[in-house]
Amino acid sequence: MLHKTETKELRNHWLEIIYGLQDKICKALEDADGKATFKEDEWQRTEACLPDRQGKGGGGLTRVIADGNVFEKGGVNTSVVYGKVTDAMRRILKITSPVDKSTWFAAGLSLVIHPINPFVPTIHCNYRMFELYEDDMFTDRWFGGGTDLTPYYLFEEDAKYFHQTYKNVCDEFDPSFYSEFKKECDDYFVNTHRNNERRGIGGIFYDHKRPDEKRNTEFWMNFGKACGEAFIHAYISIVEKRKYFLYNANHKRWQEIRRGRYVEFNLIHDRGTVFGLKTGGRTESILMSLPPTVRFEYDYHPEPGSEEDKLLQVCLNPVEWVPQATKGEF
Amino acid sequence: MLHKTETKELRNHWLEIIYGLQDKICKALEDADGKATFKEDEWQRTEACLPDRQGKGGGGLTRVIADGNVFEKGGVNTSVVYGKVTDAMRRILKITSPVDKSTWFAAGLSLVIHPINPFVPTIHCNYRMFELYEDDMFTDRWFGGGTDLTPYYLFEEDAKYFHQTYKNVCDEFDPSFYSEFKKECDDYFVNTHRNNERRGIGGIFYDHKRPDEKRNTEFWMNFGKACGEAFIHAYISIVEKRKYFLYNANHKRWQEIRRGRYVEFNLIHDRGTVFGLKTGGRTESILMSLPPTVRFEYDYHPEPGSEEDKLLQVCLNPVEWVPQATKGEF
Repeated sequence: MLHKTETKELRNHWLEIIYGLQDKICKALEDADGKATFKEDEWQRTEACLPDRQGKGGGGLTRVIADGNVFEKGGVNTSVVYGKVTDAMRRILKITSPVDKSTWFAAGLSLVIHPINPFVPTIHCNYRMFELYEDDMFTDRWFGGGTDLTPYYLFEEDAKYFHQTYKNVCDEFDPSFYSEFKKECDDYFVNTHRNNERRGIGGIFYDHKRPDEKRNTEFWMNFGKACGEAFIHAYISIVEKRKYFLYNANHKRWQEIRRGRYVEFNLIHDRGTVFGLKTGGRTESILMSLPPTVRFEYDYHPEPGSEEDKLLQVCLNPVEWVPQATKGEF
Repeated sequence: MLHKTETKELRNHWLEIIYGLQDKICKALEDADGKATFKEDEWQRTEACLPDRQGKGGGGLTRVIADGNVFEKGGVNTSVVYGKVTDAMRRILKITSPVDKSTWFAAGLSLVIHPINPFVPTIHCNYRMFELYEDDMFTDRWFGGGTDLTPYYLFEEDAKYFHQTYKNVCDEFDPSFYSEFKKECDDYFVNTHRNNERRGIGGIFYDHKRPDEKRNTEFWMNFGKACGEAFIHAYISIVEKRKYFLYNANHKRWQEIRRGRYVEFNLIHDRGTVFGLKTGGRTESILMSLPPTVRFEYDYHPEPGSEEDKLLQVCLNPVEWVPQATKGEF
């Protein structure tokens, strides 16, 4: 049994990782944009009853970019929040430990980037650590995260490159990860109310990964860090390749319709959004993920066989973009 | 104990009311628009296990208007749906009756109108009847409904006129209704994640009204009908007064930002939307309520004292727009 003071070093190591990623990623995005820079908002979460600081429940560093050459709206946020386990949280996280004495701690990096040009995809990624304490004694810890790509037009080479990049990262840690986390991603970002349409072409997603003898806390921290670093080449290369593509009003309209599906997923289905809004997270930082301009048209369907339809079809039927290792190969 | 065949006449009477309202309201809106007309979509709900028709679970008549002179997007829908009580429904409706043998029936009118001009308000109204059956025997029935106005700029005379119109309707039925239903409306259309900002200036809202000795089924049907008819002069008069107002890009931007709050309310908080999406309603008909073009800006705040701020303040602090009857007056 460890007291929370004894786990502080691990928490600080994770904070170093997420702050480091935040800096690097913001810099890479500013370079790719060439005009807009990130504006920073530091916020504090207030909660009546707290684990270790009076009047505070943690906070976050929200960095937003807007109206750039390439990026219309985006945010690269870190948050470090903690508090008493509430009933809402108990339900959401399925916590069974006794009431009153349990506290939680969560820290993560979360980013969403919405480009102007419909040929440049939207991207989201999130890497987080959760801890639970009973009477200030450590009881549980788990990791979650992932990165998923939401193109408006499908370039198969981009989809393959994106998935291959994350497969390479996964393979360095465990050859079973990519196929498992790719499937979890396809199963998570789903608009169930729209015929199980995915919001994009997926990527990787994992959750509730508890350190064990085989893969300790350090392992999961390093995995999150490696995935976060892969973001830079995975995404920026695609941005550089597509950012000068010419587009017209029809392309923009389709982008805004697809952005509507992004809004639907985030507000109706996304666990992170619901959890944040119900546990006293900062609304503006959570809803930073919503696209800048959106269009909701009644019963819109792209013409079968069109470029728009081609994208829709891979959202309805997820594709294996990179060759999987055959069973038993490892 | 009545068998469902014996309550059929009542159900048909309610259907006549909602279909009649749908026709009248569509006609009045088309006249006010002067260009666009409603397009009709009939849809059928399929459900594996049904109360009285094989392979069907009811359906609806969706009528949508788009790209008019006045109205950018809108729908005036009726739906008549029924099925076996599912676990999801049991939770949402807090039904305690035995599993397997219970069936439900719901029929209602639902409309949302999004005008182009930011000086013309958005309006929503909904009037519905719910019934529960056990083994085909009638067990429960309730009514719900309401109308609420979502202006982008505040004209106090419009707000007073709108509320006065519904107070007059309410007063004809019960002098206690208006103040009760006005408060319910202010308490319902709330973005709790945004400092309890209301989505507009309210109106009336009531739910779970079960017929009793004082107010029977006929009473609640007539009340819904009278409210539905009041919609026409309550809303169309305001439309006629404001539809030629000149507006600029800043007004439109503010309208699109406020529309974003409308989306947030509908997808995060609205019981009707959640219920519809989780009980096999038709997604396109349910999400017809979403505004045509929307803007989500990070941490946007109107200038204090501006016209935009004036609207925001009455959303944050609901106003009594019409004089209330003093206690004991009746």
